[in-house]
Amino acid sequence: MSKPRLRLFVPDDLGPERSFILDQNQSHYLAQVMRAEMGEAVAAFNGRDGEWRCAISAMTKRAVTLDVTSQTRQQQDEPDWWLLAAPIKRDRIDLVAEKACELGASALWPVMTQHTVMSRVNTERLAAHLREAAEQCERLTVPRLFDPVPLERALRDWESERVLIYLDETGGQPLAQIVAALPPQSKLAVLVGPEGGFSEAERRWLKDLPMVRVATLGPRILRAETAAIAALAVIGSILQT
Amino acid sequence: MSKPRLRLFVPDDLGPERSFILDQNQSHYLAQVMRAEMGEAVAAFNGRDGEWRCAISAMTKRAVTLDVTSQTRQQQDEPDWWLLAAPIKRDRIDLVAEKACELGASALWPVMTQHTVMSRVNTERLAAHLREAAEQCERLTVPRLFDPVPLERALRDWESERVLIYLDETGGQPLAQIVAALPPQSKLAVLVGPEGGFSEAERRWLKDLPMVRVATLGPRILRAETAAIAALAVIGSILQT
Repeated sequence: MSKPRLRLFVPDDLGPERSFILDQNQSHYLAQVMRAEMGEAVAAFNGRDGEWRCAISAMTKRAVTLDVTSQTRQQQDEPDWWLLAAPIKRDRIDLVAEKACELGASALWPVMTQHTVMSRVNTERLAAHLREAAEQCERLTVPRLFDPVPLERALRDWESERVLIYLDETGGQPLAQIVAALPPQSKLAVLVGPEGGFSEAERRWLKDLPMVRVATLGPRILRAETAAIAALAVIGSILQT
Repeated sequence: MSKPRLRLFVPDDLGPERSFILDQNQSHYLAQVMRAEMGEAVAAFNGRDGEWRCAISAMTKRAVTLDVTSQTRQQQDEPDWWLLAAPIKRDRIDLVAEKACELGASALWPVMTQHTVMSRVNTERLAAHLREAAEQCERLTVPRLFDPVPLERALRDWESERVLIYLDETGGQPLAQIVAALPPQSKLAVLVGPEGGFSEAERRWLKDLPMVRVATLGPRILRAETAAIAALAVIGSILQT
């Protein structure tokens, strides 16, 4: 049985003998964009029940019905790494969302810092990017998207066991060293600033917080989105070994 | 003295008392796009003489003359990490070029593999991306761009001391482990396949080559460009510590 060419994240429960109707967007995508055929196999996941093979059992332009056939993967524990990122320009933050999903982040949290230029975050578009990336990279979950808040509010009431790795472009401990000293199942968050970096006041405040580790990615100057992607790559490579 | 807002890679020698004329493209960029002013400071580097502060001493629409003022950074040794990458779609390979430059790669080498779909590489556009990324990320060099060749030809006459880290999506040793065992000044190359991965024949052949280390970036399925960026991030973070 070959792998379905279509893979969708759905809100519905997935299990033997179940059927469900895709929403208008997904129905349109299958029927009109991908020109799916009756009976065609579709992989579906919901973040809870693993991945299931389904078959198209009814199809109009607006509503595609899937019958669940069989489970292809079981739900698994996934790493609990958040990315806290100051909003940056549209194409760059879209890239961050896509790559954060591929690299295993469990959540994306836009945080407003003093040098953040972008005042609005299109959370709907970001959520769509996260979902599409998860569909394409074969994840069994879609990273959560938290509501944009000022950085200070995000760090208030912080779970004490979640280490916050703060990437400081003025220097810190090499990220690889920090990560290598953490237990494999650690709850983590990475904090990346906007293009203008953090303010002096933010820097002083961050360094004093008990859950913070001040990290550097090396001597090169990285764009904000590169730093975010690089940090998640390093964490993934070291903690998964 | 504030940092110049303009930074250019130039072919000319840079040193005290020197003057030079920018080519038509760069002249147009300064005079028309950036609306530079007479006397304005411009940072210039050529990959050999460090970085120099210059001043605009003459300007027409077609030709901008720079007078070299003073050295702002000395040339330094940089890491010798190549990225061998099978060509992928336009926006994705442009992204790889930009990020490879930021993450410190010394060369980008497009290599054709059996599953490579893109038959042509626009090397002029790629070279421009590498140069612009170097200008923006404050590097003192522009990564070299080698002519696209079939993978087999690239690996023929390979320098014996250059380790080739081959990212195999079917598994291998964790990349972080491989890199942690290398001396900090190692000559390296990373090989990333196209979206379709490597063929069975390529895989068998690669694994038998003496300079090859077979690496994995973890359990997640990464797009080709994500794998390239992630690998360079991991190498940089570990070897620079």
